[in-house]
Amino acid sequence: MLTNNAPIYNYMPSEGIEKIHDTTMRVLEEFGIAFNHDEAVDILERAGCQVDRDAIPAPLVKFPREVVMEQIAHAPREFTMYARNPANNVTIGGDHMVLAPVYGPPNVQDLDKGRREATLEDYGNFIKLAQTAPDIRNAGGVVCEPNDQPQETRHLDMMHALLTLSDKTFMGNVVSGENANDCVELAAIVFGGREKLAQTPAMLSLINVNSPRLFDTRMLDSLFTYARARQPLLITPFILAGAMSPVALGGSLVQQNAEALAGIALTQLISPGAPVVYGSFLSNSDMQSGSPAFGTPESAAALLVSAQLARKYNLPFRGGGGLTSSKAPDGQAMWEATMTLWPTFLAGTNFVLHAAGWLESGLASSYEKFVMDIELCRMMQVFRGGIALDAEGLALDAFEEIGPGGYFFGAAHTMRHFRDAFYRPLLADVQNYVRWEQKGSETADVRANRVWKKWLREYEQPPLDPGILEALNEYIVKRKIEIQV
Amino acid sequence: MLTNNAPIYNYMPSEGIEKIHDTTMRVLEEFGIAFNHDEAVDILERAGCQVDRDAIPAPLVKFPREVVMEQIAHAPREFTMYARNPANNVTIGGDHMVLAPVYGPPNVQDLDKGRREATLEDYGNFIKLAQTAPDIRNAGGVVCEPNDQPQETRHLDMMHALLTLSDKTFMGNVVSGENANDCVELAAIVFGGREKLAQTPAMLSLINVNSPRLFDTRMLDSLFTYARARQPLLITPFILAGAMSPVALGGSLVQQNAEALAGIALTQLISPGAPVVYGSFLSNSDMQSGSPAFGTPESAAALLVSAQLARKYNLPFRGGGGLTSSKAPDGQAMWEATMTLWPTFLAGTNFVLHAAGWLESGLASSYEKFVMDIELCRMMQVFRGGIALDAEGLALDAFEEIGPGGYFFGAAHTMRHFRDAFYRPLLADVQNYVRWEQKGSETADVRANRVWKKWLREYEQPPLDPGILEALNEYIVKRKIEIQV
Repeated sequence: MLTNNAPIYNYMPSEGIEKIHDTTMRVLEEFGIAFNHDEAVDILERAGCQVDRDAIPAPLVKFPREVVMEQIAHAPREFTMYARNPANNVTIGGDHMVLAPVYGPPNVQDLDKGRREATLEDYGNFIKLAQTAPDIRNAGGVVCEPNDQPQETRHLDMMHALLTLSDKTFMGNVVSGENANDCVELAAIVFGGREKLAQTPAMLSLINVNSPRLFDTRMLDSLFTYARARQPLLITPFILAGAMSPVALGGSLVQQNAEALAGIALTQLISPGAPVVYGSFLSNSDMQSGSPAFGTPESAAALLVSAQLARKYNLPFRGGGGLTSSKAPDGQAMWEATMTLWPTFLAGTNFVLHAAGWLESGLASSYEKFVMDIELCRMMQVFRGGIALDAEGLALDAFEEIGPGGYFFGAAHTMRHFRDAFYRPLLADVQNYVRWEQKGSETADVRANRVWKKWLREYEQPPLDPGILEALNEYIVKRKIEIQV
Repeated sequence: MLTNNAPIYNYMPSEGIEKIHDTTMRVLEEFGIAFNHDEAVDILERAGCQVDRDAIPAPLVKFPREVVMEQIAHAPREFTMYARNPANNVTIGGDHMVLAPVYGPPNVQDLDKGRREATLEDYGNFIKLAQTAPDIRNAGGVVCEPNDQPQETRHLDMMHALLTLSDKTFMGNVVSGENANDCVELAAIVFGGREKLAQTPAMLSLINVNSPRLFDTRMLDSLFTYARARQPLLITPFILAGAMSPVALGGSLVQQNAEALAGIALTQLISPGAPVVYGSFLSNSDMQSGSPAFGTPESAAALLVSAQLARKYNLPFRGGGGLTSSKAPDGQAMWEATMTLWPTFLAGTNFVLHAAGWLESGLASSYEKFVMDIELCRMMQVFRGGIALDAEGLALDAFEEIGPGGYFFGAAHTMRHFRDAFYRPLLADVQNYVRWEQKGSETADVRANRVWKKWLREYEQPPLDPGILEALNEYIVKRKIEIQV
């Protein structure tokens, strides 16, 4: 598992963090958060919140700061997630980083077939890529939308793929409480029953806030289901500043903080001590066009500050990824992805959704960019590893051997270390121009195209007990019939 | 001028920095540095160094640590460089960052004509681009090699272009002491004589160490000329770890530090208090092919530590840029450039050579990448600016106005700030896929192609006194005749 050696980068001085915290508390106390969910409102009222049930568009809950702070203190600082292959268990929180693929795109894209609606085959392909890439430690959730399957039952198809094509941790469906329950039931089949599953959480689910300041019914139904099943939740305000929050980073961070803490407090009231992650998905709108913009300097700054806030509250943090607004896996795609991945790693982000494959403001999962992003994540992991300053790291014997103007290629120290000394690129081409031209002047996307095909060819399905597979299939068939009646 | 608000990122703990320092002192004392230059050796010997004049390949100088530390303490912490347009004066050191274009490529590349040998026309074009881009505060030196001009006199053509096409600070030629003297004479014509020029340094010159541990004659001749003319020097070890230094970052940083400090000590012995910059150009070799590799995680880490060392010695720091090994302005080019520019800005680098236009491991100046890199530099400048937490930054009035589930586009706070709130991209495309496709599915390099042409069209030559222009021309004609006799 990836742990951090290079220090965390604290972008904002602590007085700034305290100012954001204080303003957040004012927003929770004075403006409140709306919850479109009676049970949630009841629970929050009993905990000491002030409730206005007639507020539009949904009941408004004002949180005394003591209530929020007391509840979020119940959440664990870090927790373990269990994979059906124990070698793939992961820790969320602390110094650990867990990378997961892109989440949510309705389309896929590759150099051969261009951009198109995603299918279940694509879905399976991205799960296979996530399973194959050792850097990816959570196989993901909606790696793309399998649009060739009926909307009402496709969560079952996705869970089947997640549980059979991969043996890593994964993500649950949040389209409705009923879907969430199916996910829990299916996971329970694999993990030895609901009780066992509650003790060995296996799936993490993404609860988005309908920012500004609104939790909607379906998300809250899912939140209740997963919190009660003790499956971890990412509480993530969905913010494009200027549209879903003020056109200023300070206010946007306050709003995000208020929304995330309110949701986290609710999870702890439902299920004290349940694993939960402070989520950030905060970029800005392009104020000329109103379009979302990714890989911006504002989003980089906001990401670093969001992580500082999560650390202040002793909560695991989710943020960042390889985000971009580009429509092709070109220069823009990669400068924007790198613009986001640097702060992601500098922040010590504990769970990185969208770490690989995101393209087109999240509207397409790109096969090529999946591989390109993996290259970036690998490099950032090496960067986080720090510099050795022991005898071999300082290499004084090499200075003894190689005099002024000499070459170190043949030094004994080089012979001892050249194999592992430096990062070996997956895609980056370092050949000279003539050789590169002779080999077809391939740009990075073309080389990436070869790599993902190779990974799919080399993919090996992890073994699964035939009895479990049969039980999964039975459940899915039964539920498809029930749903489609 | 660009100053830093976001904090510096200290990658290595201070004990690590002290260990590198101590080991550096041992290398200077026990292994020494070779200087292929009698006068340099004489000066160093008089200062208390031990000299072995018969060493191969050049006289070897061992530096007692007191000598090094005493001499480098004479160098100024920061200094001003004077442009012929005073609005373009810059400070080197402290919190300031000065960006300069790519330096050294024999080739140029653009999407229209592909890759080819650079000409004087290309040279002029890159100077014009550097003059036009407000982010670039030093017009550069060898923005590309004007290969259509005779090698012996092309430094005169380059200086003519620098002094007539731009009114920003610039860089001097270092091919020989004689060339350096021509640069000083030409600059003196523009700046009111050699004495005035010494008081208002106008050009910065790049002294590369022939690493490992060797200063060669031509570079030292140039160093002497510029140090005596009080024109600033960048002392930069040229290190690809594994080839010119050990295959370990710790030892490579030690070697770089020893070389840089030795060169800086020499400048201070020649001309106490002369402006000088601690330079780093440290990447690693690809150990499979032996090729140089840029934008690597190792180079990012080394850059941050190099800046920490320069700060320890109270010296201005040069490092980083938009480095890449890619042969095209593609995804690789931009992830590698961003991989280098992030640490460049996090380190608070005072002088950034190669900030725009570098391609192909420095063998080609790319017109398109020049523009793409400017986009990155602009974003990083916004990132460094920090987050405002005053009343307008926190935007509480916007929360009062916009309720749960609302949109902030129409808020009064948004109306006040939307024009300047967020970074406006130069190249990044945020349109949706359909509109992007309708407009021709242009990748970032294609859009950059349009921008640099627009910049060249809009370029305005800065005025220059006709008498000065005549004097420059006369000097150059006279020298061309002398040299070509």
